[in-house]
Amino acid sequence: MKNKLYFKLKNKKVQEEVFESICKEQNEIGYYSLPEQDISPILDYTKTISEEITQIAVIGIGGSSLGAKAVYEFIKPIKALQRELYFFESTDPINIINLLSQLDLKKTHFLVISKSGTTVETFSIYKYIYSINQNAQAYTFITDPNSPLEAYANEINASVLYLPDNVGGRFSVLSTVGLIPLALSGIDIQSLLDGALTLKKSFFEAGYMKDTLLKKAVFYARHHGQYRINCIFAYSETLKYFCEWYVQLWGESLGKKQRHSAFNVGLTPIGLIGPKDQHSFLQLIMEGTRNKSVTFIKIENFKEDIVIPDISLKHLESLDTLNHLPFSKLINMQCDSVTEALLEEDIPLDTISIEEVNEENMGALMFYYELLTSLVGELIDVNTYDQPGVEAGKIILKKKLEKEEQMKS
Amino acid sequence: MKNKLYFKLKNKKVQEEVFESICKEQNEIGYYSLPEQDISPILDYTKTISEEITQIAVIGIGGSSLGAKAVYEFIKPIKALQRELYFFESTDPINIINLLSQLDLKKTHFLVISKSGTTVETFSIYKYIYSINQNAQAYTFITDPNSPLEAYANEINASVLYLPDNVGGRFSVLSTVGLIPLALSGIDIQSLLDGALTLKKSFFEAGYMKDTLLKKAVFYARHHGQYRINCIFAYSETLKYFCEWYVQLWGESLGKKQRHSAFNVGLTPIGLIGPKDQHSFLQLIMEGTRNKSVTFIKIENFKEDIVIPDISLKHLESLDTLNHLPFSKLINMQCDSVTEALLEEDIPLDTISIEEVNEENMGALMFYYELLTSLVGELIDVNTYDQPGVEAGKIILKKKLEKEEQMKS
Repeated sequence: MKNKLYFKLKNKKVQEEVFESICKEQNEIGYYSLPEQDISPILDYTKTISEEITQIAVIGIGGSSLGAKAVYEFIKPIKALQRELYFFESTDPINIINLLSQLDLKKTHFLVISKSGTTVETFSIYKYIYSINQNAQAYTFITDPNSPLEAYANEINASVLYLPDNVGGRFSVLSTVGLIPLALSGIDIQSLLDGALTLKKSFFEAGYMKDTLLKKAVFYARHHGQYRINCIFAYSETLKYFCEWYVQLWGESLGKKQRHSAFNVGLTPIGLIGPKDQHSFLQLIMEGTRNKSVTFIKIENFKEDIVIPDISLKHLESLDTLNHLPFSKLINMQCDSVTEALLEEDIPLDTISIEEVNEENMGALMFYYELLTSLVGELIDVNTYDQPGVEAGKIILKKKLEKEEQMKS
Repeated sequence: MKNKLYFKLKNKKVQEEVFESICKEQNEIGYYSLPEQDISPILDYTKTISEEITQIAVIGIGGSSLGAKAVYEFIKPIKALQRELYFFESTDPINIINLLSQLDLKKTHFLVISKSGTTVETFSIYKYIYSINQNAQAYTFITDPNSPLEAYANEINASVLYLPDNVGGRFSVLSTVGLIPLALSGIDIQSLLDGALTLKKSFFEAGYMKDTLLKKAVFYARHHGQYRINCIFAYSETLKYFCEWYVQLWGESLGKKQRHSAFNVGLTPIGLIGPKDQHSFLQLIMEGTRNKSVTFIKIENFKEDIVIPDISLKHLESLDTLNHLPFSKLINMQCDSVTEALLEEDIPLDTISIEEVNEENMGALMFYYELLTSLVGELIDVNTYDQPGVEAGKIILKKKLEKEEQMKS
């Protein structure tokens, strides 16, 4: 993975300061040590799931689904996988009915993932599915140790797996939360971790990524009053759910009250897919308010490729320049063309090149974004790892549910 | 469809002025008259497609696909449709290979949609597919009259249909561009237009929507320096592609240099799906920089519904308040709870209620957003209907392609 920055920055001192803070933070925050974990307990667990199980349904929302989905949807198109993954992540009845209609319950194992063990969406869906299939062996629960959910799982004799300490939902893709569904699907989770570890070492051991990530983070933080919107423009449909994962990671980590002020700060993430969004959001970047930075992501080698045939269409001869071109080359030329067009408009941007679609590169890319998020959070003085703003809505819902129950009785 | 605004606004004069401008604009801009069109030519065309055709593949990008996709994905989960729609909208080779693997070419009709007739993405894909299937009867072309594409289609004796005058891509969903694929899939396009017409009349004939839309547009325009980001928070998975359509409509129409100044202006669209994005983007809205407005969209009656069963889970008894609750009620309670939480934070918001999932309501919702876009564009002094900013990248790509060709020869 290469990352080229097109903006300049001198503040060496602030870069060294934030690097020190992050080095210290490593001892408290759990996600930093996930790349080095021993995955043998996870692989042992996967052996307990029968080969007759061909469908894995994840019941989880937000941090409990977005990471696994991002990796799965990235790898699935280029690899024959052992099992399919399905994600129940909405209380929309139409969505639940439709997902269930795609499952063969005899061949399905359900992973119920909830850190707290009391997520409303997860348990309303779980109750519904459990009413249809009361075989406890069809479920595995992933939760915090000593949560009420662990007690429940033990009660019904179902498998329970634990989240590591101090790993928040949106930083949990490389923990059991992401690794269990991915391992069950047949994705190479060791390579995923290896990629993350390479990136981690390159940052912490003063490699190529240290300088790059520090510069980028300081640029985003220093200019966050002007460039409030940070777009990823990824040139591959396989990165669509990676973008959704990024939106949660960035938005929920950085949109906060500052620790030492009464200010509300934050950076707004946008995920775009090229070339499609050249025909949608690009106009706004090119000519709209200058409040956006852009990171282009492109894949250098597509494993599967096809070539535009040498056909000349009468009256459309101007399109003959496309002939003989591999699509992989065309999509990257499109990416380069838009990059150059934005550079001419002085829009702050950088480009990330991924050699090819595989687990290792996705692990590196995810760890890169996790580190960048931690750095920017530290620089803009927020608690990167909490999400107090979502509590208000939950409390109101709880009151509404209690009122509803009183009306029933 | 109901729309309740939670912000106040007095500027009656500017409201009347922009209303007059829009009334005048009706004579020039084509989309305003689409709801009244006679659809019999479209229905006649659909009769020419054999009943053995069960798959319709749209080859088009941006305005040529987003509208039909939004309506199709909204209606599909609740209606048994005659044919399935597929959308080729990327030059990503992995995506093209995967889509093709889902098609049975003997049962597929291809719609090639390009206003100019020279879109790079559309014709690179078309050339590839044509090299596999050279039966001209398998293709219908939708383009501007007298375009080179029309000449080509006539050359190979394939069907050609035309776009109406002065209808830009992102405002074209209710023209042949959207209606042909939708009619072929079995969606009731007359109801779609009826819904749009009802909304149109309510606005232009001084009904409920006139006051509401004018107030909302003037609020967005007047405060656009502060609230630069306009989120839709839609509480149904079926509205996911509607959000993508909205992002193009809003971003590409309003992100511009002003007509009478050198300023770059624009409003940034964000599409969110509830309750999923409560676990992602909500934190940023609640506690991040106060630069966002929010429009909640909810569906009052889900046609298909299921009920959370009366199951008490040991150790998880606190979740018993969910028992007996229909999911449709839960998802709307979640929407109401988040609405109330945001109101307490003084975040500018409004709510749109849709009675149920059907064509009429989608037609109304789309026309509502088209009118709102036209109003805001007029108020912030931009040309709502062009997209000059996307040309620079196209010119660079053209040069790259020519250079590539020279190197080959």
